[in-house]
Amino acid sequence: MPIDLNSDLGESFGAWRLGDDEAMLALVTSANVACGFHAGDPATLLATCRGAAQRAVRIGAQVGYRDLAGFGRRFIDVSPADLTADVIYQIGALDGLAQASGSAVAYVKPHGALYNAIVNHREQARAVVAAVVAYDPTLPVLGLPGSVFLAEAETAGLRTVIEAFADRGYLPSGELVPRSRPGAVLSDPDGVADRVLRMVEDGAVEAVDGSVLAIRPDSICVHGDSPDAVALAVAIRDRLLAAGVDPAPFV
Amino acid sequence: MPIDLNSDLGESFGAWRLGDDEAMLALVTSANVACGFHAGDPATLLATCRGAAQRAVRIGAQVGYRDLAGFGRRFIDVSPADLTADVIYQIGALDGLAQASGSAVAYVKPHGALYNAIVNHREQARAVVAAVVAYDPTLPVLGLPGSVFLAEAETAGLRTVIEAFADRGYLPSGELVPRSRPGAVLSDPDGVADRVLRMVEDGAVEAVDGSVLAIRPDSICVHGDSPDAVALAVAIRDRLLAAGVDPAPFV
Amino acid sequence: MPIDLNSDLGESFGAWRLGDDEAMLALVTSANVACGFHAGDPATLLATCRGAAQRAVRIGAQVGYRDLAGFGRRFIDVSPADLTADVIYQIGALDGLAQASGSAVAYVKPHGALYNAIVNHREQARAVVAAVVAYDPTLPVLGLPGSVFLAEAETAGLRTVIEAFADRGYLPSGELVPRSRPGAVLSDPDGVADRVLRMVEDGAVEAVDGSVLAIRPDSICVHGDSPDAVALAVAIRDRLLAAGVDPAPFV
Amino acid sequence: MPIDLNSDLGESFGAWRLGDDEAMLALVTSANVACGFHAGDPATLLATCRGAAQRAVRIGAQVGYRDLAGFGRRFIDVSPADLTADVIYQIGALDGLAQASGSAVAYVKPHGALYNAIVNHREQARAVVAAVVAYDPTLPVLGLPGSVFLAEAETAGLRTVIEAFADRGYLPSGELVPRSRPGAVLSDPDGVADRVLRMVEDGAVEAVDGSVLAIRPDSICVHGDSPDAVALAVAIRDRLLAAGVDPAPFV
Repeated sequence: MPIDLNSDLGESFGAWRLGDDEAMLALVTSANVACGFHAGDPATLLATCRGAAQRAVRIGAQVGYRDLAGFGRRFIDVSPADLTADVIYQIGALDGLAQASGSAVAYVKPHGALYNAIVNHREQARAVVAAVVAYDPTLPVLGLPGSVFLAEAETAGLRTVIEAFADRGYLPSGELVPRSRPGAVLSDPDGVADRVLRMVEDGAVEAVDGSVLAIRPDSICVHGDSPDAVALAVAIRDRLLAAGVDPAPFV
Repeated sequence: MPIDLNSDLGESFGAWRLGDDEAMLALVTSANVACGFHAGDPATLLATCRGAAQRAVRIGAQVGYRDLAGFGRRFIDVSPADLTADVIYQIGALDGLAQASGSAVAYVKPHGALYNAIVNHREQARAVVAAVVAYDPTLPVLGLPGSVFLAEAETAGLRTVIEAFADRGYLPSGELVPRSRPGAVLSDPDGVADRVLRMVEDGAVEAVDGSVLAIRPDSICVHGDSPDAVALAVAIRDRLLAAGVDPAPFV
Repeated sequence: MPIDLNSDLGESFGAWRLGDDEAMLALVTSANVACGFHAGDPATLLATCRGAAQRAVRIGAQVGYRDLAGFGRRFIDVSPADLTADVIYQIGALDGLAQASGSAVAYVKPHGALYNAIVNHREQARAVVAAVVAYDPTLPVLGLPGSVFLAEAETAGLRTVIEAFADRGYLPSGELVPRSRPGAVLSDPDGVADRVLRMVEDGAVEAVDGSVLAIRPDSICVHGDSPDAVALAVAIRDRLLAAGVDPAPFV
Repeated sequence: MPIDLNSDLGESFGAWRLGDDEAMLALVTSANVACGFHAGDPATLLATCRGAAQRAVRIGAQVGYRDLAGFGRRFIDVSPADLTADVIYQIGALDGLAQASGSAVAYVKPHGALYNAIVNHREQARAVVAAVVAYDPTLPVLGLPGSVFLAEAETAGLRTVIEAFADRGYLPSGELVPRSRPGAVLSDPDGVADRVLRMVEDGAVEAVDGSVLAIRPDSICVHGDSPDAVALAVAIRDRLLAAGVDPAPFV
C-alpha cells in the first residue's frame, strides 16, 4: 500500500528565501514546484527541478494567479480565456526548466486562492482544465475530492488524483477550515502523523466538529512553507514507514 | 533563392496593444514571438501563436531581460546563472503556448538590449547559449554576423542563422547605428525594399558613411512595432516577389 | 452653473501608449492620473502631471488594484489592511510627481474593478476611505451616487464628489451597464453631448430601459482611453459652452 | 560626539520576510526604508514606518532600480529622465506612508546597484540628485565620500551626509570591496564594533591591504538583512555607548 507525499516547493523569489527545498526533497515523493506567477524566480525553479531530478522526486506544476505581492493567496477574477493562457504559460515554463534538469512536469496542482476558487468556481475550473488539456492531456491533476475542478477534469478525460492535507483541519463538508478560523492549521508532528496514517490505513479523518469523514487520498500534502514543515514531514514519513506504508509516487 | 522574413510579434501586454500581428503574420515567414519578460501577456502570446500556426509561419522565442517597464531595451547586469534560467523559462513558456496552438518554438532570437549586449558581452552570450543548449540543442539561434553570441553558439554546436535588418542603418563595422544617432531607422518603403533586394541578390548593404558592406543574411528582420511596419513589409515582400525571390523560412 | 469634466489619464506604460493625454488635458478640468498599479510608469505620470499643471487642470489620484496585466479591471480579493497601504502608497507616489510638477493631488478616484467593487464591497470601501483619511482628510473622493464608498467616505468626514458618466449606459438602478452587455458604452458624440447637457441642466439621464433617472453630478467623466475619446470630449465641451455651461473644477 | 546608525529596513515583500525590523528599530537612529522598487510591499512599508515613528527613528527613502527579482542589486541602464521619475515616485510613495504614520521622509539613500553605480556614473547620479531637488531640496542625501553622487548633490545645493559601512571591507581607494571578493563582508561582532569605534573616534579605518584610510562618517551603516544583523548592531551600539559615544540622528 504505497502513498504519495507531495509538498509545495520552489517558492523562494530572488533574494527572498522560503522553505527548505533541499530538506523536503529528501522526504517527499512529489514536488509541486511554483511556476513564477505566485512565487519562484527561474533560477530558484531550476535549482529545485535539478534537486528533484537528482532524487527522483516527481515534478508537478504548481500554477497560480499572477500575484507575487499576494503570493497567489488572493482570489482574482481572471477571465477564463486569460486564465487558460496563464496556466499553459506556467506549465510550459516549468516544463522547460524540468526538462533542462533531466526530468519533466508530471502533473498539475493549482496553488492557493486558485486551488480554493476552483473547488466551486466552474468557469475558472474549466479554464484550468482547458489549459492542461491543451498542454498535454496525459497529465494528471491534483485536487480536493468533491471539487468542481476534479469533476470538470474527469469530464474532460484528465486523470485526477485525490489529495488530502496532513496539517489542515477539515470541515464536516470535506472542505478545509479557512485559515482565518481556529483549527485551520495543525502543527503537532505526532498528531499530524497519526492523522495521516489513519487517512491512509482507514480512509478516515476527523473533522473539526469531531465527526469522521471518509477520505481515500492518492496523495498527502505536507506544506513546505511553514517553520515546522521539515519536522512534520519527517514525522509523517517515519510513521508511515513504521506501519509498513511506503511513500511512493501516485500511479 | 528563398529568403526568410522575420518580425517581432506578440509584443502587446494586457490592455496595451502594440503592432498589428494579424497583418504581419500574412507577410513574414518567421515570427519572433515575445515571451512575457519584455512584453507579451500569455493570452496575447497564445493568440499570436495560433495565428502563426494557422498561416504556417514559424515561431521563434524572442527572449529578453525581465523588464516590462523598459520593454527589454535597457541593459541589465544579470548574472549568467540567472540569465540562463530566465531564458530557459521563457523558451519553455512560449513553447507551451506554441504547442497548444499546434506548432512549436523553432528557433531563438534575443530581444532588444539583450540582443545588443551579447554582440560583445561574452558572459551573457554564453548564458543565452547555455539556455538553448539545455532546452533543446537542435534549436537554431538568430543573431548579428560577427557577434560574440553567434561565435559562442557555433562553439557550442548550435545552428546559427545570420540576420540583416531591413530598416536599420549600419555602421562601417557592421554594427547597427544606435537609435540615438541619425540614420538609425529607415522608413521609406521603396528605399528599404531596394536595400533588402540588394542584400539578398548582391550580398551587399550600404553603411551610413557610404561604404559598402558584404552581408549574406539567412533572414531579414522587418520590425513589427513601428507605425509603418506593415507598409514596409508589404513593400519588401512585393519587391522580392517581383524579383523572383520567394520569402520562405530559413532552412 | 459650472460643471467639472474629468478623464482618466496617465495610462500609458513604458513603450505602450494609451490615450492622448495632451489633447484631453486641453479639454477637461480634472485629470484622474493613474498611480502605477494598474497603469502609468513614473516618467509617463510625471509628463502627465506637468501637462496638467501647465494647463491648470486639477490632478486626482486614480488608485487601483496592483494588476498591470489586467489593467486594474479584475476584482482582487485584497485584505483591507493591504488595500489601505496600497492606496496610501499610490496617492503618495503621484503626489510626489504632482508636487515636482508644481501642482498636487487634489482628490482621489478609484479605478476600474476597485471602483466597481466598492459600490457594494464595504470592507474594501472602508479600506480606501481609511487610506484617504490617513493620507490627507481634506482630499475629496469621486464616486458613484448611492455607492457604499461614498457613504463610508461621508461617515468618515471626507468630502464626496458625485460623478456621472458621459459615455456609459445606466441601469434603472443607477448602476452602470456592465461592459459585457449591450448599451454599456456610447460612442456617438452628438448623442453623448446631448446626454451630458441633460444631466447638467435637468438633473436627468435616460437608462437603458427608457426610464429616466434623477442625477445631480458634480463632475462628468469622459473616458480617455477609447479611440473616440477626444472627439467625444470636444463635442461635450462645445455643447456645454454653447448652452452657457462653463467647464470648471468642482468646488 | 554623537554618531548616527543607519540600517536598511522594510525589505520584506508579501509573504517573504527579510530582516528583523522590530529588533533593528530598537538599535538604530535612522531607518533606510525600501520604497517598493527593489523590495517592500506597501503594507510592510507602512508597518516599518509606524515602528520607526513610534521609536522616533528617522525615516529615509531607500530608492532603487525597479527590479524585485534582482533585489535592486543589478545595474540597469535606465535613462536619466526615467530614473529621475522613478526616484520621485519612490520618495513620494514612502513619504505618503511615513506621513500616514505620523513621521515623514527625512533623507534619501540609494540602494544596492544604484548606490554603487552612482559612485562613478555621472548621468545616473545627476538623475537621482534631480529627483531629490524636484521633490524637496531640503532633504539630505547619504552616500560614499568621494562619490560622484555626493559631488553632484553638493553642486545642486543638497546637504550631503557621509556614510561608512560597519561590516564591509574597504579597498585602499576608499571604495567597498566587491561582494564577489574575499574580505567584502565582516561578520565578527567584536571586530566590527572595534572598527566602528575607530572610525568614529579616530577617523580611520583599515583597508583590506592593511593600509589605513581617513574617514569622517556622519552615519554608520549596519546592514539589516544579514543573519547576524541584530547581533552586529547590538555589539556596535554597546561599544559606542561604553566609549561615551551616543547614537543619535545626524544633524
